[in-house]
Amino acid sequence: MFSKETYIERCEQLKKTVGSGLLLFLGNDECGANYADNGYRFRQDSTFLYYFGLPYAGLSAVIDIDGNREIIFGNELTIDDIVWMGVQPTLKEKSESVGVAEIRPASAIAGYLQESAGKKQTLHYLPTYRAEHQLKLLAWLGVRPGKETPSIPFIRAVVNQRSYKSSEEIAEIERACNTTADMHITAIRMIRPGLRESDVVAAVTEVALAAGGDLSFPVIGTVNGQMLHNHYHGNIIREGDLFLMDAGAETAAGYAGDATSTIPAGNSYTPHQKEIYDIVVNSHRTAAAALRPGIPFSEIYDLSARIIVEGLKNLGFMRGDAEEAVQAGAHALFYPHGLGHMMGLDVHDMENLGEIWVGYDGQPKSTQFGRKSLRLARKLEPGFVLTIEPGIYFIPELIDRWRAEKHLEEFINYEKVATYKNFGGIRNEEDYLITPDGGRRLGKAIPKTTEEIEALR
Amino acid sequence: MFSKETYIERCEQLKKTVGSGLLLFLGNDECGANYADNGYRFRQDSTFLYYFGLPYAGLSAVIDIDGNREIIFGNELTIDDIVWMGVQPTLKEKSESVGVAEIRPASAIAGYLQESAGKKQTLHYLPTYRAEHQLKLLAWLGVRPGKETPSIPFIRAVVNQRSYKSSEEIAEIERACNTTADMHITAIRMIRPGLRESDVVAAVTEVALAAGGDLSFPVIGTVNGQMLHNHYHGNIIREGDLFLMDAGAETAAGYAGDATSTIPAGNSYTPHQKEIYDIVVNSHRTAAAALRPGIPFSEIYDLSARIIVEGLKNLGFMRGDAEEAVQAGAHALFYPHGLGHMMGLDVHDMENLGEIWVGYDGQPKSTQFGRKSLRLARKLEPGFVLTIEPGIYFIPELIDRWRAEKHLEEFINYEKVATYKNFGGIRNEEDYLITPDGGRRLGKAIPKTTEEIEALR
Repeated sequence: MFSKETYIERCEQLKKTVGSGLLLFLGNDECGANYADNGYRFRQDSTFLYYFGLPYAGLSAVIDIDGNREIIFGNELTIDDIVWMGVQPTLKEKSESVGVAEIRPASAIAGYLQESAGKKQTLHYLPTYRAEHQLKLLAWLGVRPGKETPSIPFIRAVVNQRSYKSSEEIAEIERACNTTADMHITAIRMIRPGLRESDVVAAVTEVALAAGGDLSFPVIGTVNGQMLHNHYHGNIIREGDLFLMDAGAETAAGYAGDATSTIPAGNSYTPHQKEIYDIVVNSHRTAAAALRPGIPFSEIYDLSARIIVEGLKNLGFMRGDAEEAVQAGAHALFYPHGLGHMMGLDVHDMENLGEIWVGYDGQPKSTQFGRKSLRLARKLEPGFVLTIEPGIYFIPELIDRWRAEKHLEEFINYEKVATYKNFGGIRNEEDYLITPDGGRRLGKAIPKTTEEIEALR
Repeated sequence: MFSKETYIERCEQLKKTVGSGLLLFLGNDECGANYADNGYRFRQDSTFLYYFGLPYAGLSAVIDIDGNREIIFGNELTIDDIVWMGVQPTLKEKSESVGVAEIRPASAIAGYLQESAGKKQTLHYLPTYRAEHQLKLLAWLGVRPGKETPSIPFIRAVVNQRSYKSSEEIAEIERACNTTADMHITAIRMIRPGLRESDVVAAVTEVALAAGGDLSFPVIGTVNGQMLHNHYHGNIIREGDLFLMDAGAETAAGYAGDATSTIPAGNSYTPHQKEIYDIVVNSHRTAAAALRPGIPFSEIYDLSARIIVEGLKNLGFMRGDAEEAVQAGAHALFYPHGLGHMMGLDVHDMENLGEIWVGYDGQPKSTQFGRKSLRLARKLEPGFVLTIEPGIYFIPELIDRWRAEKHLEEFINYEKVATYKNFGGIRNEEDYLITPDGGRRLGKAIPKTTEEIEALR
């Protein structure tokens, strides 16, 4: 938690930006995995954390802009709670530590909101992402599930604050990135043929937990890097495999790191693996070097894709004009995702507030395959924190589909591509801060080139 | 997953027991931690797993007893899913692998249930424990959240099956118990002054993940064992501390293990720690030796409490007749929880179905402090799997409260107890199967006596 001045200032700025009305913050509750009392790790809602800092279940908050007051709704511990859980600060003390003087019992919120509605005060709330949020809006306001109307001014004001990371936030993110680097170095050192994917996932999870926080998202750790969404960890790693690991740490305060490495099962990359790998590193470096305030991230994405097309042309997988290939979306056969995303209290920062506001500043998105997966396109500004994560994959189902349709065959040599259908996938990823004159990698370096990685094996 | 015959037989038995109507099984969905796509580890509902075996999100099932059919409702993967996640068996193939021939799209369930209601068929569903379950009952059946009416016949029939573990289930539980033992042996070997609690929690989590499953519940790993519900892991372990760890593994198939060890920070227990520790081990062993079919578990609880009272009398903390002290609830100052609980697909097996049905066979529970926390009281039967976990704690807030009220002072020497307010807490726990002629510990032995633990240090 930061000092109370941080939270007070954030609330003040938010009030000024939205201007009037009542802002409702839905804190998160415990979520039972297989029965109510067997809960997943509690994770507070990130916007609640940003403005009110308290990482406890069962809280809600309102900012009454018109009345210029903040109230936290929640319950004090009972004597039974204290007997079972030990003495803790009271909710009043906790709230005061983040600059909120007024608390009320959890049961009072419905009446409070209804009274505010009776006074015709505009109620602002954010998009829901847990079923419990929907149940609350139903119980308190009669909003039917699926019929929520989140407030655009509230969303835009929150995005407008959370996008610009303060120095204390950057220090936290850097801490997360350092633990994330340790996770990757652990994996690079340990991977060898015969291990199971879950052995590696277990070891890097230990690194994240021992640092006092947790994972920032479920680990992707797989010999099938071409499957982009893959949380199966049961395969044995075999000589010749590439192990793709996308994993990051979250600090105890809730800030994320996010990195990806692609590691050979044996001591070195095969010549074919190295050829593809080098293109990805080149794309990554070129993109990182292009970071600066004022450039639209969509341009850096185009650049990263062009490097990939040029590299694949050199190897005979693609042909034609690289620029035209990128505009046509031909690169997306190999690189079907975006270049990166904002990162902060969420690993995909503010994702629940809507990509169009977070990554596109309200402008429409492309619908082209590949480009439509770009989460961030807007002009960069100092204080933004984002990932750079290009990749090249040989996805058999996608190759078969495009080839059958002769899709964009002016740019793609399907004969050659077909010979690589068992290649797998390569991605590398690090996190960057936009500075007044460029970009700075956050956290210590993770070995990235084939030479750097082979040196650790 | 077991063979399809297992699931077919389970469903057949359930149909016979309930007799008529429509049985609704709510599978679980993904639950986003801080936005929709950053999900907690998916955990299928245990009753869904028991009858339908499929560990995938977004499924529901019905058994139409009157029409003698089972249907699984869910969606096939789209081509986009396959591009991103690779080729998988179809839902039809998955369903057939658990003996269900009929599948329908997820969107068809509301209409199906409404049609069944129109035919005056009785609908049975189980208690909800996730907000998403409540949203489904609202959307499909118009049941207002909080106004659910779970089916007692359905609950009782499920309890009547899941309570008796088959040999294939016992093999799975034993696998979980073996990994659980490895977690505890890891902790016993590593603990030393200067480590942080989170270091130990991280290491035992690695053991659980590397075994290919996960934790069966969040690890309690603390130098404050007297706080019974404690998931804070930020303390440094200091010489003289006792580290209490309550932790277990879940197999990939979903079966749980659960054990507790209390480990000295240094190489050995202090003489005072050893005195209390030995009482707990004696209570544990006496309780385990008393396990047999036909004995009410409440009697074994009484026995475990009597051993604790006698031990504490010998040390001067208690006085008077041990039997009377237990009936009056005086032991609960030191031993305020139950002796154990059923274990299976849930670590507190079937907890969401209601303790009164699972542990009390429908009979009323005691309201006495301590005894009211006993989750299991019913007569034991072969095939039951349960934990034995007595403990002794010095809980400062509870001691102060009872002492101020002179509560049960005929049994408690508060002068002496007050001198132990900083002692902490001790518990040990293992898992047992009720056999035709007694009880058998599941999984390999975890060092339990002070000598066994000190030998590993």
